Amino acid sequence: MGNWRCVITVGDLGEFVVVARITGRLPQGASVLLGPGDDAAVVNAPDGRVVVSTDLLLEGRHFRRNWSSAYDVGRKAAAQNLSDIAAMGAVPTSLVVGLGLPADLPAEWVDGLADGLRDECAVVGASVVGGDVTRCDLVVLGVTALGDLGGRAPVTRSGARPGQVVAVTGRLGHAAAGLALLEAGLEGEAVDAHRRPRPPYDKGPEAAELGASAMLDVSDGLVQDLGHLAEAGGVGIELDPAAFPLGEAVVAAAKELGADPLDWVLAGGEDHALAAVFPADVRLPAHWTVVGRVVEGEGVQVRGRVIELKGWDHFRQ
Amino acid sequence: MGNWRCVITVGDLGEFVVVARITGRLPQGASVLLGPGDDAAVVNAPDGRVVVSTDLLLEGRHFRRNWSSAYDVGRKAAAQNLSDIAAMGAVPTSLVVGLGLPADLPAEWVDGLADGLRDECAVVGASVVGGDVTRCDLVVLGVTALGDLGGRAPVTRSGARPGQVVAVTGRLGHAAAGLALLEAGLEGEAVDAHRRPRPPYDKGPEAAELGASAMLDVSDGLVQDLGHLAEAGGVGIELDPAAFPLGEAVVAAAKELGADPLDWVLAGGEDHALAAVFPADVRLPAHWTVVGRVVEGEGVQVRGRVIELKGWDHFRQ
Repeated sequence: MGNWRCVITVGDLGEFVVVARITGRLPQGASVLLGPGDDAAVVNAPDGRVVVSTDLLLEGRHFRRNWSSAYDVGRKAAAQNLSDIAAMGAVPTSLVVGLGLPADLPAEWVDGLADGLRDECAVVGASVVGGDVTRCDLVVLGVTALGDLGGRAPVTRSGARPGQVVAVTGRLGHAAAGLALLEAGLEGEAVDAHRRPRPPYDKGPEAAELGASAMLDVSDGLVQDLGHLAEAGGVGIELDPAAFPLGEAVVAAAKELGADPLDWVLAGGEDHALAAVFPADVRLPAHWTVVGRVVEGEGVQVRGRVIELKGWDHFRQ
Repeated sequence: MGNWRCVITVGDLGEFVVVARITGRLPQGASVLLGPGDDAAVVNAPDGRVVVSTDLLLEGRHFRRNWSSAYDVGRKAAAQNLSDIAAMGAVPTSLVVGLGLPADLPAEWVDGLADGLRDECAVVGASVVGGDVTRCDLVVLGVTALGDLGGRAPVTRSGARPGQVVAVTGRLGHAAAGLALLEAGLEGEAVDAHRRPRPPYDKGPEAAELGASAMLDVSDGLVQDLGHLAEAGGVGIELDPAAFPLGEAVVAAAKELGADPLDWVLAGGEDHALAAVFPADVRLPAHWTVVGRVVEGEGVQVRGRVIELKGWDHFRQ
């Protein structure tokens, strides 16, 4: 007589029950004029402009169900899109999510995913306002975030000028260190950072107010992402490796694995730190760290270091 | 000595070249303040509210590469989302698209897809303003559309009241007839309708101006979709089967296959016709056909006909 446990799957429930179950877990905030359940949602856009970004996340490529809980997948999926909105100097208002779900996926997994999306949105006061559910052999999330600029000009990637300084805020190298631990079959504080990024959302609008001329969120790796910023601005960037603060979790993981923590800081993505360019005379709050400067030329140089660009290309890895 | 043809794949090009190749094919319209290439796009939302809808489309489930060209997949993917915006009484402004692409997919296929998305957006004056490309074993599209209400109240699903009339505009049953032909290995005019819907986009805002109290686009099947509208309004709906105009392509396909064309009209989806509820004394332009009325009660009845609900549930089919 074994222990039998009855697991209810999304296939048992059917599309409409799954949708109702998800939407029942999603409170609608003040920006939402019409939430889930209609052909489309309606969200406030008081600025008269709307900021929009989308990402596709695939099981096996962007997350693994045996490495991350459904809740963590939800938080991470929301975080990476909300962070793109913040990186324009905007405040996220809402998220819509297209979901591909295997029929044998436990309904509880979907509950966890919805809760994760909801809780990450709650960090910035945003709501999940709509979505779509379809059957798929693997878990697929198509996440789109909207945001409001509150009268600010959007901070693009192209505004860097020679003489300006490059500053970062948020964690760098944590997610990469955590992934390295997981791949080695180890645990550690950095693993939490891999499972659940903590983007510094409110520092995006702050950077815009402080006069940032260019900004992006670090998703593929700092050197690679700053390379896009350098290219868009027609400038070069010089980074000072000694300027980077190394997080305790990164240092601990490096010790454990015999690795150089600065490799993760410079080439690791998925922490969704913000990197911004400011006038040289800017006075920045302490949570921003100046790590380099904009120069004439092209590309990203790291002082005293040859960088082999290991950033992410989805068709090369 | 065979005929060798060199096919360049997305894997040959890599993520960044593929993205540049796609965005190079996408003109940016007047609503777009910042197009592809940054963390997020910025689109005008002059109404101070934004309408948003998302769908996930999967190869093998929503389209087949041997039945539809890349161009048709692009048009259809855009159409189904733009139609959701129109069904709220809004005018679509923009689209963002998350793409999952197999590494061995010919780059030309992606060109065709981008052209299809672009051309369907052009029908309504919208633009593809951003996206995301990632590698996937099957083609996946996460499509999100935004729209502007132009000062109108959104027309939701819940406003139907007894005594009002139900009217439709656009094609009904065409896509289902076309799919039936394809499944039988046949061709015919309806097949084009399956490959490329022609939603009556401008009739959505028109219905709002004419005083529609409820509206939706027919994506899963008329009876099933009107069932959602009846449930949302706490009412019943009676349809008159004699009132439906039968398209020539539908009649031809029915003759070819020995089928009843009204089955496709009542239960077939994917044409993205609009169904709206109006006050009984409304004067409608000729492109709207009154097909029934709202009554006390619940559910959808078709006069003189027992309807076996065959509408779409993604986990049951």
